[in-house]
Amino acid sequence: MRTRLTEAFGLTHPILCAPMAFAAGGRLAAAVTHAGGLGLIGGGYGKADWLDSAFAEAGNARVGCGFITWKMAENPAVLDQVLARKPAALCLSFGDPAPFAPRIADAGVPLVCQVQTLRDAQRAADCGAQVIVAQGAEAGGHGERRGTITLVPEVADWLAVHAPEVLLVAAGGIADGRGLAAALMLGAEGVLIGSRLWASAEAQVSEAMTDAAIAATGDQTIRSTVMDAARDLRWPARYTARVLRNAVTERWHDDPDALRTDMSARADWATGWAAGDPDRANTFVGEATGLIHDRPPVAEIIARMVEDAEALFRRAPGWAQ
Amino acid sequence: MRTRLTEAFGLTHPILCAPMAFAAGGRLAAAVTHAGGLGLIGGGYGKADWLDSAFAEAGNARVGCGFITWKMAENPAVLDQVLARKPAALCLSFGDPAPFAPRIADAGVPLVCQVQTLRDAQRAADCGAQVIVAQGAEAGGHGERRGTITLVPEVADWLAVHAPEVLLVAAGGIADGRGLAAALMLGAEGVLIGSRLWASAEAQVSEAMTDAAIAATGDQTIRSTVMDAARDLRWPARYTARVLRNAVTERWHDDPDALRTDMSARADWATGWAAGDPDRANTFVGEATGLIHDRPPVAEIIARMVEDAEALFRRAPGWAQ
Repeated sequence: MRTRLTEAFGLTHPILCAPMAFAAGGRLAAAVTHAGGLGLIGGGYGKADWLDSAFAEAGNARVGCGFITWKMAENPAVLDQVLARKPAALCLSFGDPAPFAPRIADAGVPLVCQVQTLRDAQRAADCGAQVIVAQGAEAGGHGERRGTITLVPEVADWLAVHAPEVLLVAAGGIADGRGLAAALMLGAEGVLIGSRLWASAEAQVSEAMTDAAIAATGDQTIRSTVMDAARDLRWPARYTARVLRNAVTERWHDDPDALRTDMSARADWATGWAAGDPDRANTFVGEATGLIHDRPPVAEIIARMVEDAEALFRRAPGWAQ
Repeated sequence: MRTRLTEAFGLTHPILCAPMAFAAGGRLAAAVTHAGGLGLIGGGYGKADWLDSAFAEAGNARVGCGFITWKMAENPAVLDQVLARKPAALCLSFGDPAPFAPRIADAGVPLVCQVQTLRDAQRAADCGAQVIVAQGAEAGGHGERRGTITLVPEVADWLAVHAPEVLLVAAGGIADGRGLAAALMLGAEGVLIGSRLWASAEAQVSEAMTDAAIAATGDQTIRSTVMDAARDLRWPARYTARVLRNAVTERWHDDPDALRTDMSARADWATGWAAGDPDRANTFVGEATGLIHDRPPVAEIIARMVEDAEALFRRAPGWAQ
């Protein structure tokens, strides 16, 4: 499958792995690259030693890395640490890329900005992003409110006029060939996949949380801040994270501040998180959980996704008669 | 463009007009039917005389009608009034269709159920719906939280196993050929269009509200309950309505109950609504407002949408090489 994205990055398929904190270690990122896409290590909250071991795990695979911008800004040394490795791409999400874009450009590394609004996209283009990932609210983990099906074409229209060289990638709710095909129809040059790759053999996710996601329908997720309160993380107010509903969200969703000051409840969450327990902590997965029914290897996921999209593309002219 | 939906309803294009309360009168519904789709009069809050004049306006055009289920349930006589006209379809949204489905079946009228969750879709199929409209949160006006890009394929998968004869239609965020093409890729047999037809020459919408929508980006909408508080409507808590952000949402969004008891503020909203004032009342439009830049006649909107989707379908096999 060829698009401007595959050409720019030398990929076989226009598929990026979401740089999911914790879940996207070197093994997952490398598997996506080996399967013809581009793996991005989830730099997440920017722990230097975790990053070193993730890159070691990726071995010789050409991978990129993603950061949570506002968190990385507290310790930008990790950005330099990663740039020194000449990653295939550096992805910034959730915060202003402006302070870091020049350093990334100087390192000769392509800048990928994940955005949640048209305004963010305009800012990213102004900062010199080579790739803009338009992330809809359907996505698992942190995000915002706009839906993929409107955000992608609206950003595409703006880029076509103001920055046609920037590549657009769709994210949020895409988990199979139908989603990939729809994303290209909406004007994207590729997709960034979270939940579907999160539920893969190579992801660093507990079996219990994966099983909980497989059992859930897409109706059973919620955007919340309970997981940030439980970890006392100071995410900017505009971002919430999509997780599976459970006893934790039932109890605290309407009053996360109370959780933030309840040390016993927070300790329980931390214990549950360490154990990968979907009942005591939170399972970070998107609405696409309702489209996920297994935990195969990455190579199988990507092959299936591409084959199914290609079958739809071959069938499409039949609708135009 | 041929799908199972066009065949079942004898349409030229797989496009339904959303039965938008107030906006979708007989003129809009008839224009959609004349353009090759199927118009649905917005039965809305079920005023008998308004319905009579809307059907009169539609003239000889074959149109259907949609109701807000929980509201119509307060006065089911309006359902009988409409069924007596043998509409092309009867659409129920926002409430349990079970109490009304038998009466609609007895009248020989196809039942269309608009749903917002997988669970709703299952219920609608069990009630004998011939068409299920899966409506994503991107939609303007009332709706819920799930995104179109995950809800449509998940409902498609469930129907394929449990009720393959039911036709699936996508709604929410679809305003041009890209959205129509994406919807078919996701597994829908057609689309239900709100905002794009709301901003048409034939819709009953003030010029000022239309202009406000044309000027807005998709970032500038919000799901809220302020408009229901202002009208003292008792919508079930799960539903909110997407409108343009303005001074009313800024002031009351976080405290709609206070608006409900503020008679002066409510009177001001009502005056603004009657005048079609986008600053004093609320403009009901979806995230697709960012894709809408004009107010052409319906025939032009539909022709453009179909042509653009067909061009994408013809181009699609190029991605499968």
